[in-house]
Amino acid sequence: MSQPVEFYFDFSSPYGYLAATRISQVAGKYGRGVEWKPILLGAVFKVTGSGPLPSLPLKGPYSKRDMERSARFLGVPFKLPDPFPVSTQAPARAIYWLEQTKPERIEACVLALYRAYFVDGRNISSPDVTADMLASLGLDRSNALAAIAEPAIKERLRSVTDNAIERGVFGSPYIFVDGEPFWGSDRLDQVERWLRSGGF
Amino acid sequence: MSQPVEFYFDFSSPYGYLAATRISQVAGKYGRGVEWKPILLGAVFKVTGSGPLPSLPLKGPYSKRDMERSARFLGVPFKLPDPFPVSTQAPARAIYWLEQTKPERIEACVLALYRAYFVDGRNISSPDVTADMLASLGLDRSNALAAIAEPAIKERLRSVTDNAIERGVFGSPYIFVDGEPFWGSDRLDQVERWLRSGGF
Repeated sequence: MSQPVEFYFDFSSPYGYLAATRISQVAGKYGRGVEWKPILLGAVFKVTGSGPLPSLPLKGPYSKRDMERSARFLGVPFKLPDPFPVSTQAPARAIYWLEQTKPERIEACVLALYRAYFVDGRNISSPDVTADMLASLGLDRSNALAAIAEPAIKERLRSVTDNAIERGVFGSPYIFVDGEPFWGSDRLDQVERWLRSGGF
Repeated sequence: MSQPVEFYFDFSSPYGYLAATRISQVAGKYGRGVEWKPILLGAVFKVTGSGPLPSLPLKGPYSKRDMERSARFLGVPFKLPDPFPVSTQAPARAIYWLEQTKPERIEACVLALYRAYFVDGRNISSPDVTADMLASLGLDRSNALAAIAEPAIKERLRSVTDNAIERGVFGSPYIFVDGEPFWGSDRLDQVERWLRSGGF
């Protein structure tokens, strides 16, 4: 099997959520897996000088409308949560815990955490809420909570985020196909053609 | 015939160029015309605090790659010009001159000016180069040059740009379909569905 598609995302990113619902299917059509890489956009914004979409003049109000419309366009359930955005250390660390323990459960957990936030409005920034979600998928709640507070897991999230910035990642979702970078849920059509043709 | 699709763009915007090559066909399928509205993104960036894509950390290098790849994806000829970006008062004012004199020539002139810059690398920020382009399409060169320097035409460009900012326009291309805003050449699929369905 060829190199997996690398999928960088923040759990508080609506476009990350939209793309997450489709990336496995797109990659799978071409015999590829997905490497799920949650990062913290807050650290990225310190480098780019940007900020969360709702905070940006003119772009903020448009973005809210565009998120909702893009979800309808793709037929994906979506409700802008409140609070939005939130810090996403807890769910991101949970994924790096699974990376070390049950990597085969990562995708289901990513999608469940995203749905919890962007469909059910649950505040996944809370370690307890994140642990509840994992428990509802049959994972061990107290081990999850311990992992979220564990220095090695914290360090793993920090180093993946730092490495993402070094590779030029400035938003979410940010996808690499054999080293070629694609930013945004609206690049999935180009991602697909790249996978099919090996470049264009 | 229903209300035309409003197409706001800056002549120095690669994604504006890409969308300009397709918007008439998309609108025409649903019996709509296109209202071409060149604006000055520089004035917009003063409000948003943003800047031209190549100047942005991390986003700059990605954007150059994405512009070229998006052009190949769409099958549109494209070569990133040097200098880039340029100020676009001259070509924008030329379009508002045509608005008053030969509106039926606007579309051909927009596309010719865009091609001159993004395919042939001609510096359309120069009034002489813009006037040459219009002359090559059979328009009067000296009248074009005079119009580019005319206070009423300058004021028209300023007022369309100000009005665009009031309407929330923060980038190029920025398209309104019956009041619904769409930002970016990658929203043409949503524009098309909106035209077909009257919303979704």
